[in-house]
Amino acid sequence: MSIITLLTDFGIDDEYVGVMKGVILKINPSVKIVDITHRIDPQDIIQAAYTLSASYTFFSTPCVHLIVVDPGVGTGRNILAFEKAGHVFVAPDNGVLSLVFKNEEEPKLIKVENTDFFLESLSRTFHGRDIFAPVGAHITSGVDLNRLGPIIHPDDIIRINDLSPSVSAQGDLLGKVISIDRFGNLITNIDSDALSTFCKNNSGWSARIEIGKQIITGLCETYADGAVRTPVALIGSRGYLEVAVNKGSAEKQLQAAKGSIVRVCK
Amino acid sequence: MSIITLLTDFGIDDEYVGVMKGVILKINPSVKIVDITHRIDPQDIIQAAYTLSASYTFFSTPCVHLIVVDPGVGTGRNILAFEKAGHVFVAPDNGVLSLVFKNEEEPKLIKVENTDFFLESLSRTFHGRDIFAPVGAHITSGVDLNRLGPIIHPDDIIRINDLSPSVSAQGDLLGKVISIDRFGNLITNIDSDALSTFCKNNSGWSARIEIGKQIITGLCETYADGAVRTPVALIGSRGYLEVAVNKGSAEKQLQAAKGSIVRVCK
Amino acid sequence: MSIITLLTDFGIDDEYVGVMKGVILKINPSVKIVDITHRIDPQDIIQAAYTLSASYTFFSTPCVHLIVVDPGVGTGRNILAFEKAGHVFVAPDNGVLSLVFKNEEEPKLIKVENTDFFLESLSRTFHGRDIFAPVGAHITSGVDLNRLGPIIHPDDIIRINDLSPSVSAQGDLLGKVISIDRFGNLITNIDSDALSTFCKNNSGWSARIEIGKQIITGLCETYADGAVRTPVALIGSRGYLEVAVNKGSAEKQLQAAKGSIVRVCK
Repeated sequence: MSIITLLTDFGIDDEYVGVMKGVILKINPSVKIVDITHRIDPQDIIQAAYTLSASYTFFSTPCVHLIVVDPGVGTGRNILAFEKAGHVFVAPDNGVLSLVFKNEEEPKLIKVENTDFFLESLSRTFHGRDIFAPVGAHITSGVDLNRLGPIIHPDDIIRINDLSPSVSAQGDLLGKVISIDRFGNLITNIDSDALSTFCKNNSGWSARIEIGKQIITGLCETYADGAVRTPVALIGSRGYLEVAVNKGSAEKQLQAAKGSIVRVCK
Repeated sequence: MSIITLLTDFGIDDEYVGVMKGVILKINPSVKIVDITHRIDPQDIIQAAYTLSASYTFFSTPCVHLIVVDPGVGTGRNILAFEKAGHVFVAPDNGVLSLVFKNEEEPKLIKVENTDFFLESLSRTFHGRDIFAPVGAHITSGVDLNRLGPIIHPDDIIRINDLSPSVSAQGDLLGKVISIDRFGNLITNIDSDALSTFCKNNSGWSARIEIGKQIITGLCETYADGAVRTPVALIGSRGYLEVAVNKGSAEKQLQAAKGSIVRVCK
Repeated sequence: MSIITLLTDFGIDDEYVGVMKGVILKINPSVKIVDITHRIDPQDIIQAAYTLSASYTFFSTPCVHLIVVDPGVGTGRNILAFEKAGHVFVAPDNGVLSLVFKNEEEPKLIKVENTDFFLESLSRTFHGRDIFAPVGAHITSGVDLNRLGPIIHPDDIIRINDLSPSVSAQGDLLGKVISIDRFGNLITNIDSDALSTFCKNNSGWSARIEIGKQIITGLCETYADGAVRTPVALIGSRGYLEVAVNKGSAEKQLQAAKGSIVRVCK
């Protein structure tokens, strides 16, 4: 048995996701399909990149991950396939795989273009159904990636380079809010490694975290560590800095939004 | 293995869909269940009819499609079962199958009433759980449709007849917006066949499309063909005319809604 | 084959649910996973308790139900496992199982603490992924509950005692709205047993139901029994009193909310 995961911005109001599953099961009836989420904000490639990065390692291999956040659907943009430790990723060439490639020196990338593995009738608006779903299903049925198309050089694909936090002129760590979850927790792009290099010492975290006008001193271990309605900072389940409010919403209380700047000072 | 698809207006906030799946798996543990969507607008039979029509052919057969958009639940309305090329549809007799029947001269319809295949304790408010789920599961377990109830004559069921676009006194094609997807794309009831008969010639599409005060000339091939923020018209993935805005929302920009009139002039 | 159901307040916008499924399938690839709902209102333990109670009996056994509505995640709160007629429940010790225990004189409860069955790397913010998912999967793989931790005495767990309706000084039955479904139906905590003991006699239901300024006399059988736009009361699919409006929303028309008081007079 193998697994196909789906990560899209299609939402769940329309038939799009169900139809992709129909196409997959028609080709490989024994595959298991797991939804990561279909509620990536429309066309938000960066949010999708972080969501993928936080998810894929929890799946057993072999596993195929289909990422369809694809503002350029139907244009000349390429579709990439890439294998890493038993995980195969199929995604548009728009940077959404940047975090997956991050530590790969020479990723072997395939440009997916062999129409033998597409649906026969190919629309220009719904490649999720017509290309991603059938290609993913064929891979789980044993089709080798090399049959999907030629190798493409890593220099010829799109990478998003400013995903990581930067360091300001004052020496502060500057990140931003990438996602806001259902509880109003603000999930940033500041990972625990960057943070601990920056401000962890023998006596613990010496961080001062600023977001908007709010200043938070030190890091908590869990959401409930703070007093009720008090903003706290912590390393969340993704391994990234989060700002949260115990029994409340940091989004509302701090009037924060996706993209809000988060500054960490020593 | 066979598949049951679910198409409802139950939403996903409550236990309704999960409970239907429990009932199905209790009767046939080996069936695969695929959600088409549960977010049909409450009681919108026409939206459900188009969503079903856009979905079912992508599933391998044998497949059972349960459609539970059912404002008349608990009243005397009938429940129908109908088989077409390996696809079995089970739905309330309220017109939701009108597009599936469209080109069937003499559809063989079953009136589902054999309580042997219902849950023992029958509520009058949740036939999705008490009738549709168990009936669907029994069909996938091999129960013949003829055992579900008597044949009902096609004249004795409800059909929605004004689903298709009409022609105005001026000779224009008049359709309307049936669904608005998550990207704000306006999906109409004007199918590509009707459109090409009406306004395709050797030099391409000569259509002028009017929606509200917006006039769009000609058809694009994909969403990204238009300039950013410019409304375009195209044949969408359903095979129907859509109005979209590249990197924007046609719904917002054109202040359109479900039901908005779309006029196509030669 | 066995089933794991998931009932959480995680929502579906983030990767949380997908990741739990990845963890489960890594441990037991043959399990079926069914979502009850992930849209319990954030941290609403009572709503979750009723949703669970309305769902679990519809699943075949053996079945493991993971309930992750867990405001105390990462604090010292316990996690409980409990078996009842082939259904195993794994939930935080916060009262969410109160309705499941209701008629159990001496429930045998396990305090889940054997880290052998947790993920190796344990966060303090996402026990759904790190504890509930792997523990649930191990149970379906045949791990005996006794291996998960010691027995905990029923007196040492948290129960919510005011779940049931009370009787006012005037002798009225006083309940409240627990959930509002997608159709705007108001689902109360007044179960049909309590109601029939209170106000059913040989000539039917003699109830007068008050919610806000609205008075409803008698009970209907189904939503469509009332005139269009007229509020009706009925026993809903959960077996609890509901207030609904035929082809309308009781929530909007009665300006009701979760927690609104519902009074039943003889």
